[in-house]
Amino acid sequence: MQRLIKLKEPIPASGKGKRASHVYRVAAEIMCHKGYEATSMNDIAEAAGLTKAGIYHYIRGKEELLFEIMMYAMDNVEQSVIAPAREVEDAEQRLRTIVECHLRSVLAGVGAITIVLDEMTSLSAPHRRTITARKRAYLDFIRDTLKQLVAEGKLRKVNPTIAAFSLLGMILWVARWYRRDGSIAPEDALRDYIEIAMHAVLNP
Amino acid sequence: MQRLIKLKEPIPASGKGKRASHVYRVAAEIMCHKGYEATSMNDIAEAAGLTKAGIYHYIRGKEELLFEIMMYAMDNVEQSVIAPAREVEDAEQRLRTIVECHLRSVLAGVGAITIVLDEMTSLSAPHRRTITARKRAYLDFIRDTLKQLVAEGKLRKVNPTIAAFSLLGMILWVARWYRRDGSIAPEDALRDYIEIAMHAVLNP
Repeated sequence: MQRLIKLKEPIPASGKGKRASHVYRVAAEIMCHKGYEATSMNDIAEAAGLTKAGIYHYIRGKEELLFEIMMYAMDNVEQSVIAPAREVEDAEQRLRTIVECHLRSVLAGVGAITIVLDEMTSLSAPHRRTITARKRAYLDFIRDTLKQLVAEGKLRKVNPTIAAFSLLGMILWVARWYRRDGSIAPEDALRDYIEIAMHAVLNP
Repeated sequence: MQRLIKLKEPIPASGKGKRASHVYRVAAEIMCHKGYEATSMNDIAEAAGLTKAGIYHYIRGKEELLFEIMMYAMDNVEQSVIAPAREVEDAEQRLRTIVECHLRSVLAGVGAITIVLDEMTSLSAPHRRTITARKRAYLDFIRDTLKQLVAEGKLRKVNPTIAAFSLLGMILWVARWYRRDGSIAPEDALRDYIEIAMHAVLNP
């Protein structure tokens, strides 16, 4: 977890409220910058503008915080990607909605949170099972859409699992390189990524 | 760094010799399984079938070992991907060679080593600079090939940087999900990935 990604845009607050989501985002940024193990609760409290006592009002400890950040990240995927895509009946349009919404979310500032989602080895076993199940549900949602496209003769002659992971790899990798203060505007990146992703898996 | 990926196939030994490459691969597997911070030199020695004194013959400490694994990973990219691709004059064929060789390498068993390449925050600053420069050289090699395809009118109307990171994300993500003992054979995965990757960025 390397690059500090600037978080500028609001993302939907989870049920825990805006203050908690602020702590999650700040904590994710620091974890990406310093690495999870090297990050202390003190570092997080300081960056979030809280006393150490204050941060323990929100969270019991670092592993708990990591889990909460991941839950928040998966809430974000469900609210900003799966929920709007589920409304779309046409499979091709649904796939485009998934790709666009997920990219928008990563490009708009959940980069650090997206990267923290990979820190699975630091979770307790029950927490890891919960996050794995939520990731799996998202994968299945994408794969079911791709299988529908197979039935409609629209998917390239490829295994839907490979296609799903190709799209996921492409989208999630954005968090590891894209910088909002770099030379590529988010809207330009979004347009090109959608073009690439849709042609990657769909027949012409 | 989550999944323990079985390493079964030989990959080219670096200049440091076969025994060192065995240690690197075993160490990368453990780091992926337990996380870098939670992995001790003892864990690595035990898994590699060495005494603790024995492992210090190969390596001075854990950060040094992490750096050596990354150097080995980048040696592997240079020998197994860049070197063969550099021989290919036609840009489209060169791109296909890059995609195929890199995928082969990840599918054949450098998965854990590929994942360890992301553990940049745990490196010392000079080591981080060295690895960053080598990653950058590889990115530039891909991007230069894509720029040549722009000049030939073969690339989709997309920014070559976005195209390069799309391909890299797709390929590197294989290390995070693909299991050789799963239901998809390496040759099938390879074929589908090449189909997806080439259509992703090239005009029909």
